[in-house]
Amino acid sequence: MMLSMGYRLARLKGFQKLTPVDKALGTFLATMPAKKPKTVTVALSPALNHVLAENVIAEEDLPRFDRSAVDGYAVRAEDTVGASQFKPRVLKIVEKDRIDSKQVKQVWTGNPIPKGANSVVMLENTKKTDDEIEVWVQLTPGENVSSKGEDLSKGETALKQGIRLKSHHLGLMAALGKTKVKVFEKPLIGILATGNELVEIRSKLQANQIFESNKVMLSSLCHELGVEPVDLGIAKDDIDDIVGKLKEGLEKTDGIITTGGTSVGVADLVPEAVNRIGKPGVIVHGVAMRPGMPTALAVVKEKPVMILSGNPVAAIIGFEVFGRPMISRMLGLEHTEPGSIVEARITRRTTTALGRRTFVRVHVSRSEHGFSAEPVSAKGSGLISTMTKANGYVVVPENREGLEEGESVLVHLFDNVEVGG
Amino acid sequence: MMLSMGYRLARLKGFQKLTPVDKALGTFLATMPAKKPKTVTVALSPALNHVLAENVIAEEDLPRFDRSAVDGYAVRAEDTVGASQFKPRVLKIVEKDRIDSKQVKQVWTGNPIPKGANSVVMLENTKKTDDEIEVWVQLTPGENVSSKGEDLSKGETALKQGIRLKSHHLGLMAALGKTKVKVFEKPLIGILATGNELVEIRSKLQANQIFESNKVMLSSLCHELGVEPVDLGIAKDDIDDIVGKLKEGLEKTDGIITTGGTSVGVADLVPEAVNRIGKPGVIVHGVAMRPGMPTALAVVKEKPVMILSGNPVAAIIGFEVFGRPMISRMLGLEHTEPGSIVEARITRRTTTALGRRTFVRVHVSRSEHGFSAEPVSAKGSGLISTMTKANGYVVVPENREGLEEGESVLVHLFDNVEVGG
Repeated sequence: MMLSMGYRLARLKGFQKLTPVDKALGTFLATMPAKKPKTVTVALSPALNHVLAENVIAEEDLPRFDRSAVDGYAVRAEDTVGASQFKPRVLKIVEKDRIDSKQVKQVWTGNPIPKGANSVVMLENTKKTDDEIEVWVQLTPGENVSSKGEDLSKGETALKQGIRLKSHHLGLMAALGKTKVKVFEKPLIGILATGNELVEIRSKLQANQIFESNKVMLSSLCHELGVEPVDLGIAKDDIDDIVGKLKEGLEKTDGIITTGGTSVGVADLVPEAVNRIGKPGVIVHGVAMRPGMPTALAVVKEKPVMILSGNPVAAIIGFEVFGRPMISRMLGLEHTEPGSIVEARITRRTTTALGRRTFVRVHVSRSEHGFSAEPVSAKGSGLISTMTKANGYVVVPENREGLEEGESVLVHLFDNVEVGG
Repeated sequence: MMLSMGYRLARLKGFQKLTPVDKALGTFLATMPAKKPKTVTVALSPALNHVLAENVIAEEDLPRFDRSAVDGYAVRAEDTVGASQFKPRVLKIVEKDRIDSKQVKQVWTGNPIPKGANSVVMLENTKKTDDEIEVWVQLTPGENVSSKGEDLSKGETALKQGIRLKSHHLGLMAALGKTKVKVFEKPLIGILATGNELVEIRSKLQANQIFESNKVMLSSLCHELGVEPVDLGIAKDDIDDIVGKLKEGLEKTDGIITTGGTSVGVADLVPEAVNRIGKPGVIVHGVAMRPGMPTALAVVKEKPVMILSGNPVAAIIGFEVFGRPMISRMLGLEHTEPGSIVEARITRRTTTALGRRTFVRVHVSRSEHGFSAEPVSAKGSGLISTMTKANGYVVVPENREGLEEGESVLVHLFDNVEVGG
């Protein structure tokens, strides 16, 4: 009996040392080399979604001159004192670059304010008669004027290094007259699947074989985050084959994601293969999460290797939890990019295991009453159709045993929310 | 006095006929031709973010055979009746394709279930001694088995036409062995800026000129939604120039977005130009929203034309409100795609105008207490730096006069939310 208990402990050892999610991620990021990617200078349009590799400084004031913020007439505010619809002020329209007392000049939005003027009366607050206008409102100096340098003053930092460039950032750089921008190059990430049962989708299936489906999924997730995926193929459940393909992959990429060939305490082919290649090797193996418990995290040849379960759903969740921060770091981003999040109410009670961070797949829909999240039931984490039925997941912390009906939760979205009712 | 009032009414007419946002959008979509884009057949990876143009039917059961959902031993459930850690059942390990009574066969996740077995005991619930294992738990038939067809049965619709293809959809198609997929071709959208003061960013500025910055911004937004932008250049504030560039653009694109040259009741160069080209022409002009009031919506030569204000912020908001639904329709999507949304608390009171749908720019941040939204103050809608300071906007309905401090609102995000404290 004592011996038997000893065996049991040996078997259970793997589970006793499961690492909590936050600690696993922290250790992984702390071990990843801190080096930034190479930089490249590109035109504005192709810079979209790249990470900015320089501070962008305003080389001129923006606006460059006092501009009208509306369509109307540039005036001297003092000429409008006491004006109203029932006591209009009558002013003369001129076409010069300078106006004098009792004069106005027509301006469209963005036009420079003529000398002598200090405000703009909106068209709808005037009435034109031949070469004069009635002004119906009293203006204050500066009203409806965008002043020189109001948006950005010369020398000011317009954008900071390490942000993801979105459309409005490109617009701001264009407004500053910047034609080229320094961004970080897209890192290359190798994707390797492992498993004797797997064949590429172009092949013909033999008995007991299945089509490999994780690579295209993980490659697409990489694409969406702005890294370039590199297909490293399928390795057999054979340590030499895995070592060979990992070594080859490490030479031509900046990091690797694998699926399959990891478990806790057994069938640890990929973690073993990584450890054979170099130090520090595997730094986390077995994470207190469900799905995704067999996830392992490694650094070898100064490159990160994320070892995910072969189950498609566990692989997606592992990618969301560890891959996003890893890739944010590799891209040169200052902050980890969270995915899209929405607050919703759980439609029915679900139970989860204490001590594991659990990722419950849900289908979020929106009605006038707000967002609701319906848990999508699934027997195993291998059921990819549950991911197409769900559009997000809820994180249930380690110290909870489930979610209550009606509870308000944050849902991480991986697909669109339809607008209903 | 009577005459004067008559003039005033004429001047105000434009504002009296402002169309509410929902009505404007409804009319626009109802007038847009309903035709779907052309289809094209592509491999899975390049199909990412395209819209599916066919129903995907499962041609085989998924899984194709009964598979193990865990790492462990395939057994007959009836051989484990009454098993526990203190009353283990001892069973014999075999390597055949069929097991008999009191036998087990080792299986990894995804392996086929051997004949004779009906369940799988997880490794951690067993202890191996030479060619036997102890089983510590009682199993029910089907436990830890993914049954043939459980995910999808042959003939079932796996994915429906009209969805945007995300990574998990590609994974599902790969699992089904599908190598090519029919998607809608990306529509082409022309982008035309208008304004005498505008010059391309590669040019040298003369006095009173500014760099054109809306085209790169709108092109990027088009890219992100999966349509191909076509640069139609800059037109002068001249109706013939605008008509010429619009006509040229309509010939080589599926729709056009313009900026500038629109106001309410005056300076309506672009709406006038569109109406010269054909019917129905402009169907909405002047929308009860702020910013973006001068927005006009048109259909000409059976193609949509969205006429946005030249103010960058108004242009972005106009694009979000009318461009997203327009583009969703052009892409062949079944549903309009909402952007990313988060619920947050307003940090301070803001006032808005009754009768206008107002889009308040906010900066959303996240702490342990949830999301908070800080209104970003801005004098005019031409201030693009407010869009880089803000990361989202809140919609204040027409019947409200502002937002209260602490009020819970939905924020439409156009940039990432940083995770703070």
